[in-house]
Amino acid sequence: MRAIALATFLLLGLLPRPASAEHAPHSQPEVRVGIVLFDGVQIIDFAGPYEVFGTAGFGVVTLSHDGKPVTTAMGLTVTPDAAFVDAPPFDVLLVPGGDVGEAERDPQVLAFLRERAAASRHVLSVCTGSFILAGAGLLDGLQATTFTPRIGQFAERYPSVDVVSDVRWTDNGHIVTSAGLSSGLDAALHVVARVRGTEQARSVALHLEYDWKPDGGFVRSRMADRHVPKALETSIEWPEGLAMSNEVSVGDERQWLLRFHVTSATPADDLLQRIAKGMDGVPGWTRRPGGHRWHSEQEGRGVMLALDTTAGTGAQDYRLELRVQEETD
Amino acid sequence: MRAIALATFLLLGLLPRPASAEHAPHSQPEVRVGIVLFDGVQIIDFAGPYEVFGTAGFGVVTLSHDGKPVTTAMGLTVTPDAAFVDAPPFDVLLVPGGDVGEAERDPQVLAFLRERAAASRHVLSVCTGSFILAGAGLLDGLQATTFTPRIGQFAERYPSVDVVSDVRWTDNGHIVTSAGLSSGLDAALHVVARVRGTEQARSVALHLEYDWKPDGGFVRSRMADRHVPKALETSIEWPEGLAMSNEVSVGDERQWLLRFHVTSATPADDLLQRIAKGMDGVPGWTRRPGGHRWHSEQEGRGVMLALDTTAGTGAQDYRLELRVQEETD
Repeated sequence: MRAIALATFLLLGLLPRPASAEHAPHSQPEVRVGIVLFDGVQIIDFAGPYEVFGTAGFGVVTLSHDGKPVTTAMGLTVTPDAAFVDAPPFDVLLVPGGDVGEAERDPQVLAFLRERAAASRHVLSVCTGSFILAGAGLLDGLQATTFTPRIGQFAERYPSVDVVSDVRWTDNGHIVTSAGLSSGLDAALHVVARVRGTEQARSVALHLEYDWKPDGGFVRSRMADRHVPKALETSIEWPEGLAMSNEVSVGDERQWLLRFHVTSATPADDLLQRIAKGMDGVPGWTRRPGGHRWHSEQEGRGVMLALDTTAGTGAQDYRLELRVQEETD
Repeated sequence: MRAIALATFLLLGLLPRPASAEHAPHSQPEVRVGIVLFDGVQIIDFAGPYEVFGTAGFGVVTLSHDGKPVTTAMGLTVTPDAAFVDAPPFDVLLVPGGDVGEAERDPQVLAFLRERAAASRHVLSVCTGSFILAGAGLLDGLQATTFTPRIGQFAERYPSVDVVSDVRWTDNGHIVTSAGLSSGLDAALHVVARVRGTEQARSVALHLEYDWKPDGGFVRSRMADRHVPKALETSIEWPEGLAMSNEVSVGDERQWLLRFHVTSATPADDLLQRIAKGMDGVPGWTRRPGGHRWHSEQEGRGVMLALDTTAGTGAQDYRLELRVQEETD
């Protein structure tokens, strides 16, 4: 039986599993990972790296302040393995993101992270987990990134952090920070590469049937919605009682479309005028003739921004569209 | 405050969140997802799709046979929202994989799946979850795939299923099946595209900072280890007491390397001879002069297979390497 199991193992190219699995090559995992959980933690932020580290044969332990179950973002209930006070030693500290507002300011969380970061070979934050690390002062003077929509806020809140806006992850030697959500898979694979070499990390990625790019990969923040002027945010006089939901946010590095479903007593034309007025007040953008179109020079090339509305199913139900497009030569 | 929240929402291009989040556009989600959990479920198999569906604004509920906490593969403890008998209606049924041996034969699981699959608009299996669907008879006559190393076993066990071996997912209209692990992210995005359109699914992927390929994406089973002859599995006389762990399994569509760490009383040369003898007995492969190399014609082109051992840190500690390489013209 043993021989057959090994032969299967050989041919299928399966990787060592954690100590509990039948093919485990070691009774004690050599690398131990501690994952900090909290209410509002984003599922994929910890689940993706958990899968990566577990597949690499690392032993993974989940932790929360009091060891009680946490309710993750979207409502999944997870029971951690231990409370902070009972946490075993570990080599890799993982800090996922999500609704981090409380964790970022919780003295017990921050003290635990300071103590355990100092004792860990590698520290990895995923998504907005970098806000928690920064809150603990662990990113001062270091390069760090975060969930793309919050990069600006991150830089404002933590001026002592060298915030990098166009990478999938940063590596400061001791501390790795990833961009948003699925980026945690790549950054965890990068940590496996740091510990075991790139070849083994590639093996883990292949076992997960994941198309890993060791040098980085997809960078959300490089997409063309980076051209939407941030000043627009504060320059629009929004009508009272407006309800808007984002239906579509798609594009690539050169062009982008944002589409919102609006249900409002405010007619489409009025809303369009308000946003156009806001856009007219944004420095660096010039209104073009013919409709609601503006032009600007961004990163050395021309960029066009256009606003439009289209009718929905009722008079108070319509779509607002915002497009940005780099101009080709 | 509302206006500022909306403005931020607009500019950041954030998507609607589930009903619990502050920007939720609807108090009741229009699409409901039921995720079946069981002891040994693979974390990423359900966590990836959970994140995708939740980001799309779908309401997600987790279920287990008795509603009690399940221990996932690698040891994470998750508490489901409900037992099967208390499961609310849902539109999308998700069956993740992992250690599916029990679930695949559990009459209560299979009866629940048959009943709920019939009532669902979409059914999605991830990884070895397709074994469970097949066990319930739900894949008879349909195209289905699974975790790459188990495709052969899947086809043998369920001859009435049209097993497809080189795709990231199959779509039969009602039932979608994905390949291994991370493939569940792509298949879940495909289901979002089926429900809401490709543009919205792209938006979800971008929010997750995930480089989604709507037409498929990375296919693990197309990699060159598909050329390693399956007959080798049963043709080797393995020595007693051999301990082997797979250190590396990497490559691309044209070449592959499997490296194993061997600790054994059997010397490297003896092990090599045993595997070579097994390889000599595999039909369609011809030994080449000069070392342990064999040649075959596969898919219309020449393929070379080579075996080698390299020394480790001790006399009973060495590496076994198996390489396959497509020959260039």
